[in-house]
Amino acid sequence: MTLNILFAAGPDRWEDYARPLHKALTDAGLDYHLATELPPEEVDYMVYAPNSTVQDFTPYTRLKAVLNLWAGVEAVTGNPTLTVPLTRMVDAEGLTQGMVEWVTGHVLRHHLGMDAHIVNPEHRWAPEVPPLATDRKVTILGLGALGTACAEMLSALKFDLAGWARSPKEIPGMTCHSGPEGLAAALEGAEILVLLLPDTPETRDILDAQALARLAPGAAVINPGRGPLIEDAALLAALDTGQVGHATLDVFREEPLPRDDPYWAHPKVTVTPHIASETRPPSAARVVAENIRRHQSGAPLLHQVDRSAGY
Amino acid sequence: MTLNILFAAGPDRWEDYARPLHKALTDAGLDYHLATELPPEEVDYMVYAPNSTVQDFTPYTRLKAVLNLWAGVEAVTGNPTLTVPLTRMVDAEGLTQGMVEWVTGHVLRHHLGMDAHIVNPEHRWAPEVPPLATDRKVTILGLGALGTACAEMLSALKFDLAGWARSPKEIPGMTCHSGPEGLAAALEGAEILVLLLPDTPETRDILDAQALARLAPGAAVINPGRGPLIEDAALLAALDTGQVGHATLDVFREEPLPRDDPYWAHPKVTVTPHIASETRPPSAARVVAENIRRHQSGAPLLHQVDRSAGY
Repeated sequence: MTLNILFAAGPDRWEDYARPLHKALTDAGLDYHLATELPPEEVDYMVYAPNSTVQDFTPYTRLKAVLNLWAGVEAVTGNPTLTVPLTRMVDAEGLTQGMVEWVTGHVLRHHLGMDAHIVNPEHRWAPEVPPLATDRKVTILGLGALGTACAEMLSALKFDLAGWARSPKEIPGMTCHSGPEGLAAALEGAEILVLLLPDTPETRDILDAQALARLAPGAAVINPGRGPLIEDAALLAALDTGQVGHATLDVFREEPLPRDDPYWAHPKVTVTPHIASETRPPSAARVVAENIRRHQSGAPLLHQVDRSAGY
Repeated sequence: MTLNILFAAGPDRWEDYARPLHKALTDAGLDYHLATELPPEEVDYMVYAPNSTVQDFTPYTRLKAVLNLWAGVEAVTGNPTLTVPLTRMVDAEGLTQGMVEWVTGHVLRHHLGMDAHIVNPEHRWAPEVPPLATDRKVTILGLGALGTACAEMLSALKFDLAGWARSPKEIPGMTCHSGPEGLAAALEGAEILVLLLPDTPETRDILDAQALARLAPGAAVINPGRGPLIEDAALLAALDTGQVGHATLDVFREEPLPRDDPYWAHPKVTVTPHIASETRPPSAARVVAENIRRHQSGAPLLHQVDRSAGY
C-alpha cells in the first residue's frame, strides 16, 4: 500500500528537500507518494517544521507520526491537537561529518597557504612548498564528539597533533593535555589552533592575550566552536602585531556578524557565516526516511519526543 | 667518534636545510658535526647537489659516501674523481604525502565553496551549507601510487568517489572504471575532477571538450598531474560557458606559466606554481640522516646510484 507523505515544512524548504527526500525514501525501499498538498484524511506521515501552516492536526485522522525537520520542537510539543508520535531531527551525520569536513578543509587551507594562490593579483610564480603535515603543529582545544572526530581525520593526514580538554583523554595520534595546567602546554608553539570547546563560564575568553602569546608567531586561529571562546580585542591586537597570521571564524558573539564589526574588514580574517556544522537536506532526509521505514516495520521511532518532558 | 658532515649543496639551500638536517641527524642518534666548510681530509659524509662548488672529490680522502639532495644525478655520475658510493634522493614521504595534502585540501576547498568566504568584499553573510561529502561526486583520473593514496584519504572523508585507470583496479570505497570505454562513465556527472595521470601519447589532451561536457555543470577541475592532460582551449571555453565552474591548475605545458597566459587572468582559474608534490627539506633531511645511520651500522645504503647504468 502506498504511503502518503505530506511535506508541511514550508514551501521555501521544499526546493531543498524534494530531491533528497525522494532519493532517501526510494533508497529505504518505501512505496510512497510525497506531496506538499494532500487531503488531510489520507496523510500517513507528515514532514514538519514548527512554523508550518499546519497547526491543527485534528483533520489528519490517518496520521501515524510527525517528523520534525529541526532539532527544536518547543513550538509544537504543547499543541493539544497533536496526539501521534513526534520526532525531532538529530542529524548526527550532518553535524559531525560536516564539522570534520570544514575543519579539515580550513586546516589544510592554512597549512598549504592556499590564500596566496587564490588571491594573486600580481601573478607571482613562487614555488615555495609548505612543510609536510608531519612537521606542522596543530592543536585542538576541546575533545568532545566533534573535537575527537576532527582529531581522527587530522591524524590520518599525519599532522603533529596536540589537544586539550578539561578532563584527561586518550586519542591515538595526538598528545592530549588536560586541566588548567595543561592548557599552556597544548598552546605552546601551535601553528594552527582549532577551537571546539563548549561555551561555559570556564571557557569564556579562554583565547586571551596570554594564550595567544603562546602560539607560534604567525599562527592561524580557526574557530568553529563558540564566539565567546575568543577575547576579540586580544585577537585583533595579535593579528595587528603579526603574532597571529590569520583567523578563520565561523561563530561570533553576535550573529549575523554586525556590518560594522572589525572582523569583516580585517585583511587577515576570514568570516564564514556559522556553516561549519549544520543540518543538511540529504542527511536529514535519510533520517526521515529511516524513521518511516522503522515505524512501518514495527520498530520504535528514533529521536521520539517525550512531550511531557518537552524534548 | 664524531662524524664530520659537509653541506656542499650550495649556500642558498643551507637556510632551508640547516634546521631540518640538525633535527634529523639528532633524531637518528648520530654524534655529528655539520658545517658548510670543513677541511677536505676530515669530511666523512657529504650532502650534495650537482651544481655544488665541489667538483673535484680527490682531496676528500676520508669520504665514505655522497648523499645527493636531488633525484637527478646525471651531472655527477660521470665524475671520475668520485669513487665512493653516491645516493640519489627518493623522498617518497614528501612526494606522496605532499600530493595527498594538496589534493585533499583543494578538493575540500571546492567542496566547501571556501573562495566565496575568502574573497567577500561585500561582507555577505549567507549561511548556505554545502552538501556532505557523501553527496559530492569526486572523480580521480589516474590510479597509480599518487592517485591511490589520494583516493584513500578522500574515501576516509566519505566522498562519493569514482576513478579511472588504463587497466582495471580495485580500491575500497571507490568505483573504479578502466579502459577507453570506462572513461565516459568515470567522468559522467563528476562535480570535482582530479587529474593524476602520467603524460603519455594516450593521455595527452584527455580532458577535451567532449570529456568536459560529461562533467556536472559547474564542476571543478583540479590538475596536479601533468600539463598536457588538458586541452587548454577546451577548458577555457568550458570555463566561459560555466560548464566548468573553476579550475585549479598546478602544472602547465610551459613552466613557469608565461605572464601572458590566459589562465593567469581568468577569474575562475587558480594557478599554483607546481608545488603539489615536491621534495621537502624535513623529509629529505630524514632520508639523508637515515642513510648515514645505515651506513655507519654497516647496512646497505638506500637509493645508491649504479654509476655504470647512470641512475
